[in-house]
Amino acid sequence: MENVTIIGLGLIGGSFAKSIRDNNIFKHIIGVDKNQEHAARALDIGLVDEILSFDDAITKSDLIILSIPVDIAKNVIIEVLDKIDNQTVIDVGSTKRSIIKIVENHPKRKQFVATHPMSGTENSGPDAAISNLFKNKAAVICNASDSDSHRVDSVVDIYKKFGSKIEFMNAEEHDVSTAYVSHISHVSSFALALTVMNKERNTKNIVTLASGGFKSTARLAKSDQNMWEAIFSENKDNVIEVIDDYIENMILFKHAIKSGNSEVVKTLIRQANEVKKVI
Amino acid sequence: MENVTIIGLGLIGGSFAKSIRDNNIFKHIIGVDKNQEHAARALDIGLVDEILSFDDAITKSDLIILSIPVDIAKNVIIEVLDKIDNQTVIDVGSTKRSIIKIVENHPKRKQFVATHPMSGTENSGPDAAISNLFKNKAAVICNASDSDSHRVDSVVDIYKKFGSKIEFMNAEEHDVSTAYVSHISHVSSFALALTVMNKERNTKNIVTLASGGFKSTARLAKSDQNMWEAIFSENKDNVIEVIDDYIENMILFKHAIKSGNSEVVKTLIRQANEVKKVI
Repeated sequence: MENVTIIGLGLIGGSFAKSIRDNNIFKHIIGVDKNQEHAARALDIGLVDEILSFDDAITKSDLIILSIPVDIAKNVIIEVLDKIDNQTVIDVGSTKRSIIKIVENHPKRKQFVATHPMSGTENSGPDAAISNLFKNKAAVICNASDSDSHRVDSVVDIYKKFGSKIEFMNAEEHDVSTAYVSHISHVSSFALALTVMNKERNTKNIVTLASGGFKSTARLAKSDQNMWEAIFSENKDNVIEVIDDYIENMILFKHAIKSGNSEVVKTLIRQANEVKKVI
Repeated sequence: MENVTIIGLGLIGGSFAKSIRDNNIFKHIIGVDKNQEHAARALDIGLVDEILSFDDAITKSDLIILSIPVDIAKNVIIEVLDKIDNQTVIDVGSTKRSIIKIVENHPKRKQFVATHPMSGTENSGPDAAISNLFKNKAAVICNASDSDSHRVDSVVDIYKKFGSKIEFMNAEEHDVSTAYVSHISHVSSFALALTVMNKERNTKNIVTLASGGFKSTARLAKSDQNMWEAIFSENKDNVIEVIDDYIENMILFKHAIKSGNSEVVKTLIRQANEVKKVI
């Protein structure tokens, strides 16, 4: 293929650009970003070959990648589908039900492939882009039967070239699963950082003691407010459910510790230790 | 100095052995461990030069390091102080009030230096020991004025050779601070792992989607049940307080997400983002 357009040149869009370049998937990478600084920076550090306007970029491209916060993507996807001729469009958002719902009856629906690469870091912006971000990570394709099969094949092919592990699922399953393995990790990390930083304001030197454990558990708390507010909002019902589950487990711990019942505390820790099977 | 005894040859005791060896601090490293397998393994992989009985090891040593769970250390410290002549004894436990309380009126109190290196990993046992575990990490010395100053100096000297950053504080401050930067990180990680593993039992393939974010946030959930039950129990009042703070922050998030008030969610995330200043 010849030309690809990436709309949104942050961590994920920029990492797409690097991975496309590393694997020689397209000859020419076009960038679109409303944030002029991000656009200029992406060009400057060579993530993209040129910056074009939204309309020109779409006209010139074979594939269009939407890598913008999920709440904005819901609107932009319609503008993109309205403009395309024979192009393929993918999104890479962390929630899938709402974008799939909004394109449901669009005449170009079959040209859209809904994807979610399960990769990221706590950083954002073009400078956060990294090669190999998608390597050995799951790439989810949602509701594939609603897209032209040759388009799904070509998108799967790109992710395979990135070294991703392909998973097919429907948007409902996806949004429940990501609430559990991704969204709650962020909420719990934000809550941890809030708890510690609030205490630090009143108590000297707590954070001078911060060790590797805190760094690892609070790392995601550095994540971007716009991206994550949008995800929590779009996946509200699932996120609320998992927060309730989480608080229940936290209260189990609290009661076990408070009652001094060491066997119950150890049992809870052993059950948590089962995570060793998967990470 | 000539001989050092390490009582408890797990992650911390074993890493002490490696760090002592790497920095040529003692000529001879003696190991003591009730767990015969750990003792044999520590000798086998060269962490220690010999395994001796508790009594023989103490008699033969200049420094005795207690690196066993905090609940057991409270008892063993008295047995050690009862037996020593002119030796120095340190502990390395994650809670400090209870051990300092128990030695308070012991005639050998001044020969004991209470320390806490703020280092660790989620692994345990002699094979988990690593060189440089203490490098660039805080090493806390508690209630130093209750110990002979030349003994404090020699212990500080050892930690400095390890590359640690020395912090002096009293046991009360220490136990509050560690509840906030260390103990709550573990509780929140255990609760996260419980939440996800419970859901995984009923829902297919959640964990196939686990990405770097979940791995980082749930890493501490692999930690040892005996070590952590003891810490939560010894520091119960502070840990309960910080769990309450944490749950309150989690509920703030939940209500903000549920109400759809995106500005409140973003504000909470921005406040959490302040953690960037410290990690």
